[in-house]
Amino acid sequence: MKSKKLSIFLLGPGNVGKELLKLIIENKLTLEQNYDLDIRITGIFNSKYGINNKEGIHPDQVNNICSGLTLTSDTITSDNLPNLISHNPKPSILIDTTSSPVSFDILLTALKSGSFVVLSNKRPLASSYSVFHKLHSYGLNRIFYETTVGAGLPVIRTVNTFMETGDEILEIKGCFSGTLGFIFSSLEDGMPFSKCVEQAKKMGYTESDPREDLSGQDVARKIIILSRMIGMEIEMEDIEVQKLYPSSFDKYTVKEFMGVISKLDKKYQEKFQKANKRNNTFRYVAKVSKKGCTIKMTEAAKNSDLGNLSGPDNIIIFKTKRYFDRPLVIKGPGAGPIVTAAGVFDDIISIIKIIHGV
Amino acid sequence: MKSKKLSIFLLGPGNVGKELLKLIIENKLTLEQNYDLDIRITGIFNSKYGINNKEGIHPDQVNNICSGLTLTSDTITSDNLPNLISHNPKPSILIDTTSSPVSFDILLTALKSGSFVVLSNKRPLASSYSVFHKLHSYGLNRIFYETTVGAGLPVIRTVNTFMETGDEILEIKGCFSGTLGFIFSSLEDGMPFSKCVEQAKKMGYTESDPREDLSGQDVARKIIILSRMIGMEIEMEDIEVQKLYPSSFDKYTVKEFMGVISKLDKKYQEKFQKANKRNNTFRYVAKVSKKGCTIKMTEAAKNSDLGNLSGPDNIIIFKTKRYFDRPLVIKGPGAGPIVTAAGVFDDIISIIKIIHGV
Repeated sequence: MKSKKLSIFLLGPGNVGKELLKLIIENKLTLEQNYDLDIRITGIFNSKYGINNKEGIHPDQVNNICSGLTLTSDTITSDNLPNLISHNPKPSILIDTTSSPVSFDILLTALKSGSFVVLSNKRPLASSYSVFHKLHSYGLNRIFYETTVGAGLPVIRTVNTFMETGDEILEIKGCFSGTLGFIFSSLEDGMPFSKCVEQAKKMGYTESDPREDLSGQDVARKIIILSRMIGMEIEMEDIEVQKLYPSSFDKYTVKEFMGVISKLDKKYQEKFQKANKRNNTFRYVAKVSKKGCTIKMTEAAKNSDLGNLSGPDNIIIFKTKRYFDRPLVIKGPGAGPIVTAAGVFDDIISIIKIIHGV
Repeated sequence: MKSKKLSIFLLGPGNVGKELLKLIIENKLTLEQNYDLDIRITGIFNSKYGINNKEGIHPDQVNNICSGLTLTSDTITSDNLPNLISHNPKPSILIDTTSSPVSFDILLTALKSGSFVVLSNKRPLASSYSVFHKLHSYGLNRIFYETTVGAGLPVIRTVNTFMETGDEILEIKGCFSGTLGFIFSSLEDGMPFSKCVEQAKKMGYTESDPREDLSGQDVARKIIILSRMIGMEIEMEDIEVQKLYPSSFDKYTVKEFMGVISKLDKKYQEKFQKANKRNNTFRYVAKVSKKGCTIKMTEAAKNSDLGNLSGPDNIIIFKTKRYFDRPLVIKGPGAGPIVTAAGVFDDIISIIKIIHGV
């Protein structure tokens, strides 16, 4: 006889969501035994359709979704989603692996009704400060979002550890975009800027409009989350973000944009060549401190932590009161559905430990 | 009215223990409010003496210990320690910040009586496999030891995350000794081996007998903990450890040893010079994989993660099924009382979250 029934409700069975469902299914039995739980997936929704069952969705249906079958109109629509979520049997975890800018209300409904929330979706936390604050107002350890910065790399929990143990974070510095890491590594190898962007686009590293990455917007969303975690009441417009292309290119369609970027090739080539003569290179570096946030192309010595970075790796360098002379550094791939799903799953395990109690 | 009284019992009010007591006192009120707890320090013991009070030791007494007053024979002796610990009011955390090789029985008493255990003391976990196994047999999340490898760096919890989320660790590789990191950095800069060791000893980086470090024993203790965490039933004699001095030097006193190590200067100088010509350097690298464990001087490209290391920093490189093409890397100072105490305190907070439950 299991002591507690844990309901799991998923928004966004996309690349990350499907990998996550697989992980939950694979590890369900072990978790149930270790933590004396009965784990049920009670809802799976995308923006249009969903399936829902308070007693747990049949494993065959979950497997169908994992193996690529999409939700169809045979299943119920998302109209009464807030209602379903607030009546999801407790204890309950709502997971948002969408990239929706409008999931805020649903997350709030979940928190209000006593659910835990796990996000890989950066947007709710990166919108206005008041939204960030509101999502954190339902008590300690109710909302988890390890994968919003650096995917599965232990970034958010390291920030939390610093804060909870009374350390003071003086500066967080690093490269937070695998896409831009790949482009900068290729520039360093002498590839023209336009070719770097084309290749990154072809390999699926960039968003379908590469300006989403090249404008620094994706990095800015991560930086604003870190800034707010260390207590800054900051809005997007407070961050100084350098675009990697002239604003005059904003008016173009994606196709037109891809046509004109070769105009930037010479400029980038010269910059990297000059830096190379000084045994330096360039990185797209974001910096957070109490003084403010900046995101810009930065020259770095090749044998420094930043300059030594290669390919799509992320690097995060923490300078704190305790890690002052020598920083704490975390490095590795900061994107990808499998490592992201594993990070979300780890957040779920943290919640399970809390639910299990003693 | 607080709902739960949490007792904290400390063995070893030394450098780390005192910093820890300070952290507990500084953060007590916030923790109590956040987690609805009444936190009491109920025992502080060194190997000879101790103070104990089930209702909580008076803050003045704790402050006296923090500010350097040692425990004296005015206070009770440690003879009935197991008895005190097993009757320590629950929930209770026993903390071992000693470097005692014989605290195992006391830890076991604590676990048996329902306490949680936190260690920065490597020795109980690094003794026989059966002891390691026994300490883990009292249930999940009952024993925490983040600081036994890499001090405050998030090493142990990263291993736990891999294991719990169903990843497979293929290799853990790195430099786990700040002392040897310092010595190898100095060798790289051209300093003679004997001078490096002398300076490291003078700066308090080495144990009073530097052979404790130079024999690789300190690294081996960390490696055996990591190996066992990933499921290897390994004993110390199974690890291939390279000493940094000839075994014939083992017979000397410390003073004699310090007198003869200049005999090794030329050998080390030549090794580093040759490597330098290949744009390489040497590191003292430990490697763990299912195939076995090795700890030895290893040549590394200067622009690699290992070769790029400097000073007393530790580096830990995880290659797993998910982090296969590009590893997850953690780097930073892996020793020091303040970061170690903070790591122990973070383990305590993890336990408090579990005790708090929902």
